[in-house]
Amino acid sequence: MKRSMGARALVVPTPVYVVGTYDAEGVPNVMTVAWGGICCSKPPCLAISVRAATYTHGNLMARRAFTVNVPGRRHVREADYFGIASGRDGSKFTSAGLTPVPAGTVDAPAVAEFPLSLECRVVNVAELGLHTQFVGEIIDVQADDSVLDAQGRLDAAAVDPFVYAPEDGHYYALGERLGKAFTLGR
Amino acid sequence: MKRSMGARALVVPTPVYVVGTYDAEGVPNVMTVAWGGICCSKPPCLAISVRAATYTHGNLMARRAFTVNVPGRRHVREADYFGIASGRDGSKFTSAGLTPVPAGTVDAPAVAEFPLSLECRVVNVAELGLHTQFVGEIIDVQADDSVLDAQGRLDAAAVDPFVYAPEDGHYYALGERLGKAFTLGR
Repeated sequence: MKRSMGARALVVPTPVYVVGTYDAEGVPNVMTVAWGGICCSKPPCLAISVRAATYTHGNLMARRAFTVNVPGRRHVREADYFGIASGRDGSKFTSAGLTPVPAGTVDAPAVAEFPLSLECRVVNVAELGLHTQFVGEIIDVQADDSVLDAQGRLDAAAVDPFVYAPEDGHYYALGERLGKAFTLGR
Repeated sequence: MKRSMGARALVVPTPVYVVGTYDAEGVPNVMTVAWGGICCSKPPCLAISVRAATYTHGNLMARRAFTVNVPGRRHVREADYFGIASGRDGSKFTSAGLTPVPAGTVDAPAVAEFPLSLECRVVNVAELGLHTQFVGEIIDVQADDSVLDAQGRLDAAAVDPFVYAPEDGHYYALGERLGKAFTLGR
């Protein structure tokens, strides 16, 4: 039997995106977000939501650009740290020992060590309440050779991403393959 | 080394949401989407994106309400089917042998057999291109007893959700727990 949990942002799982931005002085910053997802195929767009109180919010408003970097499992600690600390208190890149690299197509830094980076230009901003939703048009996707198969296609298992579960409060690895989409249900 | 994959909606993983709506005649419909995610904590909101060509799009515009139902692994075939077939061609609920139940708080049907259902009222509509983004305020969350722990909290492993990987083209189960969020990175 189902029971009411009330009006809450409660769904599982959510993604773990590490959002890269530059601040006013050009210092690269990163922040981990779980509120977001692809929102359009053509033009390709991805939405992220951040609170106005965050350092990243100011950077997004000023620079109108960001990267979304997908960490693999071996960087789960760094990704968690990026969701705890603030760029106001010093460089999170330096503290974590990771490397900012300028995105090729937008005014934002990517995380060199993470295997997948999406370069986005802000095309829409919506004030929804506690969070502001930024819709970014994906100008380019950069993927490491190590996560591409022999045909040059993205291999999700090689990315080895992880997800977050609100309320439950844990990160979970990607598990076993269940089958092929648009095929299983035929 | 990273290489350019071009401007594409390519991120892994994405969620698998089964969106429930009523059509003009009150017939319950379901459609699986991978483009979406939580977009605000207060008020709690979730965004989904659907193409104007879909049956669900018309239902959303007319009824301004939807449910998001999270299937467990044992319903991966049904969820895939819901992303292939169209409600224009007959009842997907009937074909899949699943049960529509009216949501308690919004004008939309939920999937009885799926363990987690979010009841949403459309508060914002954005035309982004091929996809329209619908932001829904989450009015209630309904969770099955079987996915709640002894303290009444949502247990993600019990939901046993799965995710989708664009380009890779497969569904993946939730894997092992990697650690506690807002703790691992301290």
